[in-house]
Amino acid sequence: MSKIGKRISRKIDKGIFKFKLIEPGDKILLGISGGKDSLTLAYNLIEKSKGCPIPFQLEAVNIEPDFPNGTGDKSFLELVKSWGLDCPVIKVPVKARLKPGKTMNCYWCSTQRRMELMKEAQKRGCNKIALGHHMDDILETFLMNIAYKGELSTMLPLMKYDKYPFTVIRPLAYVQESEIIQFSKDLDFQRISCSCNFDTRSRRHPARDAIKSLSDHPSVRDSMFKALGNPNNRYMF
Amino acid sequence: MSKIGKRISRKIDKGIFKFKLIEPGDKILLGISGGKDSLTLAYNLIEKSKGCPIPFQLEAVNIEPDFPNGTGDKSFLELVKSWGLDCPVIKVPVKARLKPGKTMNCYWCSTQRRMELMKEAQKRGCNKIALGHHMDDILETFLMNIAYKGELSTMLPLMKYDKYPFTVIRPLAYVQESEIIQFSKDLDFQRISCSCNFDTRSRRHPARDAIKSLSDHPSVRDSMFKALGNPNNRYMF
Repeated sequence: MSKIGKRISRKIDKGIFKFKLIEPGDKILLGISGGKDSLTLAYNLIEKSKGCPIPFQLEAVNIEPDFPNGTGDKSFLELVKSWGLDCPVIKVPVKARLKPGKTMNCYWCSTQRRMELMKEAQKRGCNKIALGHHMDDILETFLMNIAYKGELSTMLPLMKYDKYPFTVIRPLAYVQESEIIQFSKDLDFQRISCSCNFDTRSRRHPARDAIKSLSDHPSVRDSMFKALGNPNNRYMF
Repeated sequence: MSKIGKRISRKIDKGIFKFKLIEPGDKILLGISGGKDSLTLAYNLIEKSKGCPIPFQLEAVNIEPDFPNGTGDKSFLELVKSWGLDCPVIKVPVKARLKPGKTMNCYWCSTQRRMELMKEAQKRGCNKIALGHHMDDILETFLMNIAYKGELSTMLPLMKYDKYPFTVIRPLAYVQESEIIQFSKDLDFQRISCSCNFDTRSRRHPARDAIKSLSDHPSVRDSMFKALGNPNNRYMF
């Protein structure tokens, strides 16, 4: 395996261990958009499912929305199959479900997708849903919530729903986006894009710029990630 | 009073009230560097000391280091006197105190100044030390501590020392730097600079840039400030 491949695999193990993401007997549904993040996660979870000290089952699904989503290239389905996993496609009318007068936005879309993932998990008897969010996503959400919600909060590597019998896991929590980009080049799937056309005004961009300003070295992102679990309460309001 | 003057005065009152910065009978030593921040604080605290519902005494001191510090212009001493407060100057050999081989840095300088402020407070029987840090300083420190210390912490508006009988207060906590700049132009003391020559490589600059990226409107800084006292523990590691 390549150096970057080993590095990412180790970081996924670290996330699984640190946040107790996988328990023996878990049946995990992996949401694959076809982008570099979910493909990196797919590749690694498929490998781990073949010989993980913690035995678990892996399933996959691709949620296809009713709007132009990147290139529309579905070749990743073959790729994932070649790695050893079937990935059925489920068409979801995200846009058609909008109430009259409402415009498309990231919140609506992600909620709709999440609902479908849960329905699918229930159908297949999966207790966990794995998503491809990485460290940069978690840090961006943290800064967005501070700046626009006035709240210290973020996406969790492990998130158990109160109302539903599912747990969301994010095994790429310790993996930085730059590492995923490198990995996707190595495995030659970086050309497959899944970015949608609605996120141009997303508030994610200023958060991304803010992290870039702070972070002159990858270790700064690691430090920021550590801070999320390291409050010094004497020096907070 | 000008609109910006009223606004700043109200925000100082909010800080005093919210963080219980001033109690009846306090004797407060104000550290005046001669920069826009400490002069803004001086003007406002002097005004409040004349007719505050909470009676308190105010004293001032200027700590003069042994290195070129801005323009070296001491005209602010006359200005503060015209507002109604004497501001003695204390010369402190900050640089000369450096151990051989050590180079000047912001941490060393601020520690030395703080020690002198405490000595002076003790001499004059003051129980509180007021500093001119504003909202932007507090937010920058927060982001610096996340990025470079891996810790959720910041400068507090009210900080009681464990080892010393003093409490540090930062009455400008709710005041944004842009407001101070406006005020200093109104009162025509913006030309007095106290920035030193050692902070060019300070890690404060990337933090400042990060806040700029996030903040397309002053309300974003207020939101970030609110977040410091608003953890959503369910969504933190």
